[in-house]
Amino acid sequence: MTLGELAGLYGCELDGDSGAVVDRVATLSGAGPGAVSFLANPHFRSQLQDTRAAAVVLEERHRADCPVASLVSSNPYATYARIAAFLHPPRDFEPGVHATATIAADALVAESACIGPNVVIGSASVVGEGAMLGAGSVIGADVRIGAASRLLARVTLLDGVSVGARCVIHPGVVVGSDGFGFAEDDGEWVKVPQLGGVTIGDDVEIGANTTIDRGTIENTVIEDGAKLDNLVQIAHNVRVGAHTVMAAMSGAAGSTRIGRRCKVGGGVVMINHLEICDDVMFTFRSVVTKSVREPGVYGGSLPAEQAQRWRRSAARFRQLDALAERLRAIEQTGISARADGNGPQGQDNG
Amino acid sequence: MTLGELAGLYGCELDGDSGAVVDRVATLSGAGPGAVSFLANPHFRSQLQDTRAAAVVLEERHRADCPVASLVSSNPYATYARIAAFLHPPRDFEPGVHATATIAADALVAESACIGPNVVIGSASVVGEGAMLGAGSVIGADVRIGAASRLLARVTLLDGVSVGARCVIHPGVVVGSDGFGFAEDDGEWVKVPQLGGVTIGDDVEIGANTTIDRGTIENTVIEDGAKLDNLVQIAHNVRVGAHTVMAAMSGAAGSTRIGRRCKVGGGVVMINHLEICDDVMFTFRSVVTKSVREPGVYGGSLPAEQAQRWRRSAARFRQLDALAERLRAIEQTGISARADGNGPQGQDNG
Amino acid sequence: MTLGELAGLYGCELDGDSGAVVDRVATLSGAGPGAVSFLANPHFRSQLQDTRAAAVVLEERHRADCPVASLVSSNPYATYARIAAFLHPPRDFEPGVHATATIAADALVAESACIGPNVVIGSASVVGEGAMLGAGSVIGADVRIGAASRLLARVTLLDGVSVGARCVIHPGVVVGSDGFGFAEDDGEWVKVPQLGGVTIGDDVEIGANTTIDRGTIENTVIEDGAKLDNLVQIAHNVRVGAHTVMAAMSGAAGSTRIGRRCKVGGGVVMINHLEICDDVMFTFRSVVTKSVREPGVYGGSLPAEQAQRWRRSAARFRQLDALAERLRAIEQTGISARADGNGPQGQDNG
Repeated sequence: MTLGELAGLYGCELDGDSGAVVDRVATLSGAGPGAVSFLANPHFRSQLQDTRAAAVVLEERHRADCPVASLVSSNPYATYARIAAFLHPPRDFEPGVHATATIAADALVAESACIGPNVVIGSASVVGEGAMLGAGSVIGADVRIGAASRLLARVTLLDGVSVGARCVIHPGVVVGSDGFGFAEDDGEWVKVPQLGGVTIGDDVEIGANTTIDRGTIENTVIEDGAKLDNLVQIAHNVRVGAHTVMAAMSGAAGSTRIGRRCKVGGGVVMINHLEICDDVMFTFRSVVTKSVREPGVYGGSLPAEQAQRWRRSAARFRQLDALAERLRAIEQTGISARADGNGPQGQDNG
Repeated sequence: MTLGELAGLYGCELDGDSGAVVDRVATLSGAGPGAVSFLANPHFRSQLQDTRAAAVVLEERHRADCPVASLVSSNPYATYARIAAFLHPPRDFEPGVHATATIAADALVAESACIGPNVVIGSASVVGEGAMLGAGSVIGADVRIGAASRLLARVTLLDGVSVGARCVIHPGVVVGSDGFGFAEDDGEWVKVPQLGGVTIGDDVEIGANTTIDRGTIENTVIEDGAKLDNLVQIAHNVRVGAHTVMAAMSGAAGSTRIGRRCKVGGGVVMINHLEICDDVMFTFRSVVTKSVREPGVYGGSLPAEQAQRWRRSAARFRQLDALAERLRAIEQTGISARADGNGPQGQDNG
Repeated sequence: MTLGELAGLYGCELDGDSGAVVDRVATLSGAGPGAVSFLANPHFRSQLQDTRAAAVVLEERHRADCPVASLVSSNPYATYARIAAFLHPPRDFEPGVHATATIAADALVAESACIGPNVVIGSASVVGEGAMLGAGSVIGADVRIGAASRLLARVTLLDGVSVGARCVIHPGVVVGSDGFGFAEDDGEWVKVPQLGGVTIGDDVEIGANTTIDRGTIENTVIEDGAKLDNLVQIAHNVRVGAHTVMAAMSGAAGSTRIGRRCKVGGGVVMINHLEICDDVMFTFRSVVTKSVREPGVYGGSLPAEQAQRWRRSAARFRQLDALAERLRAIEQTGISARADGNGPQGQDNG
């Protein structure tokens, strides 16, 4: 592939030898001849001047600083992503069913699909054209897997789960486990049957060991283009809007509805029955306890500090109500009556 | 099944046609003829008036507002749960051992048990009457699985784990992994052998991808009727009391003992060696660092806010100790000496 | 094994009958004749006086209080760990490949390795001498597993992952899943191909259901002797330094570099692109948002309290900026102008 061909395919302006041949991508610092690199995060700008890449995908404003060929793009990261996918296509798989797979007689598996070793597919399930079910995956009954979706390995889709087209599901993912529903009865718990399913749209990606519970009565829903990272928890009846991303270790409790194009940071959790509107961003490790009706950025974590300093702040936090009352007392009564050195500072031990 | 029969079976007072036939459950808003619905959470009261359900399970106080038949119960959610389980029994399974299962010669599997595809059962393990081991489950040596327990799929029970009767264990669960025990020695770590087992009582439910470590010397214990949600972490030597519930992404560090009937919110973590008494509730995402000796509700998370507002509070949090000292100075010395406009406000940058 | 032999092997001074025979370890309170116990955590000192152990491994300073034989060591926990490993070696496994395993024709499996039921090994992968791959493990292509490493069961190592010697990997672990990399493009997401691998050093232990993503272009790295607990998340391009320990539910976001001999508490998360120097400790549930260049202890979580008390502090937290402004106003203008009882206390509702 030449730089000229890449520029044509991906709509870049090329500054450099259009006949130069490239065959891979690399980081700015790790690149050598034949490699395409990119500059998207200003964090790495200092690495541009020393790069030995064949070409760098970058914005117009960095073009003058590039010592090698430039592929100029208004969105270098997305353009880089497309070039990388082109130069490094995923490993091909052979269509067909592995001899060790166990497939129900009434399941429908497309001829172009690839069913790996020890895969189990239950009754009346349907696997679409070009789908890939990696080794050890367990598919229940009445499951639908859309065309060209890939379950890397050891994925579990329980009864009644539906997955759209072109999804990528990483190992250890469980979809369709029972929601956490129990009715208290005299100090014990009666299980509430979890009778709904899970509907996953097209172009969804789900990270390793993420769990998505089935709905209680109606379905849990992950809309088109949503991306969930590793170890994410989606409880029963949740709806994740289209093109929303949820970073690792985040979670949504029962019946919460997250809008479209939201960005949920790592470790963020949302309590149940919330409504989050479209285009909301929650920063790292926030605890979301109220519905959000205005797009924007919301935050809620306190950064770690040197422990001794942290402990002082944390101790004062426990005194906050008393501190506020003391402040109010000064405002109301004037300081003269309290300036005898007695009493109030004793509250610091509270 | 008629409404009259349901009322009789579950001890409800029936307001309506005792001969009406029902065959399923549904939400208030989604129900049609033939469906039983329920009103337990006041959140949904407004949906009662428009429901098209055949009957609604509800409390006495809502009876007058119900436009269709009422099944009056003092605990509508528990009654609904029992009716739903009756109308929607779990999928039946055929007793027997799948041809692809690998079972040690000296393992004892009850004839009424169902062993799914690719299940592996180790030496001297025992599987009780009517138990179901779903596809891909791996059972070590010397494991006991009680009658009617169900391992949905891809569950791992390592050597020496004991599971009681009527448990439900969801896919991806690991029970009996080594506790995280290492002795520091000159900047390196010596593994402390994890020699205990795990004892799980009757009627325990364990959510997808939850992990329960074996004890260091004695056993980790989950008592009867406890319910653990998805992605929960139980460290070595922990004891979870009977009928305690732990929501998703919560965890207990080593040797912590949690009492009976506790309610642990999502994302709550407890440090090691704590004792939590019976009937304690921890709200969402609390960090528990001290033993709790009084039943009651304990909390500890700060809710997310609009990011700019949050950042102001977080910045002030780092100044808390200085703010408290400034307040004390005013209280002790009087404001007149400090009211010259110099100095103290400079501490705001601290 | 006699006490005299143990003392000789592990360099302890023995106070007691060197010919006494022991065959197991036990807790101080659970020990009987024939058992070796230990006292390392002062928490358990009160149990020493009543122990019925054959011998106790302890420090010089506790020797006088020990009612039975003492094995005196400068590091009793590490010495105990070595004795326990000696008295309780892990279950032996038979070398050989189980009949149900699926191994690529060009994979190289050492004759002394043990490959369990339903294990799948991909093309060109190499399994070292004495390695053990437990039931249901899935190994991709071009994977290296070093000598004497043990994958307990149901471990997934995807293409190109390299594991050193003597590692222990617990069930449900996924290594080599795609990093969470997507380029935003007009409200949708373009997947950034994750082309790097994962390199895991020697003597690494990885807990159940932990996930380690492959690098974007270069490798994610876990250095020698690092220990990761259960449900830990390691994002793409992270480097975990040698002998660093990360407790359960902790995580590191993309490209963060953690130094050597760090101790990361349970539930700690680090945002991306940080540099953490050697010998840093983060306490339980900290949120790390800045690089750390000084060894030491860093903290960042607020402990749970009785809920009503917590709610008061949390409400005041939201008023912190206003409280600080009111304090500054008093300092600047003097209290006399404000001591009329009007106005300021109204801000308490802010």
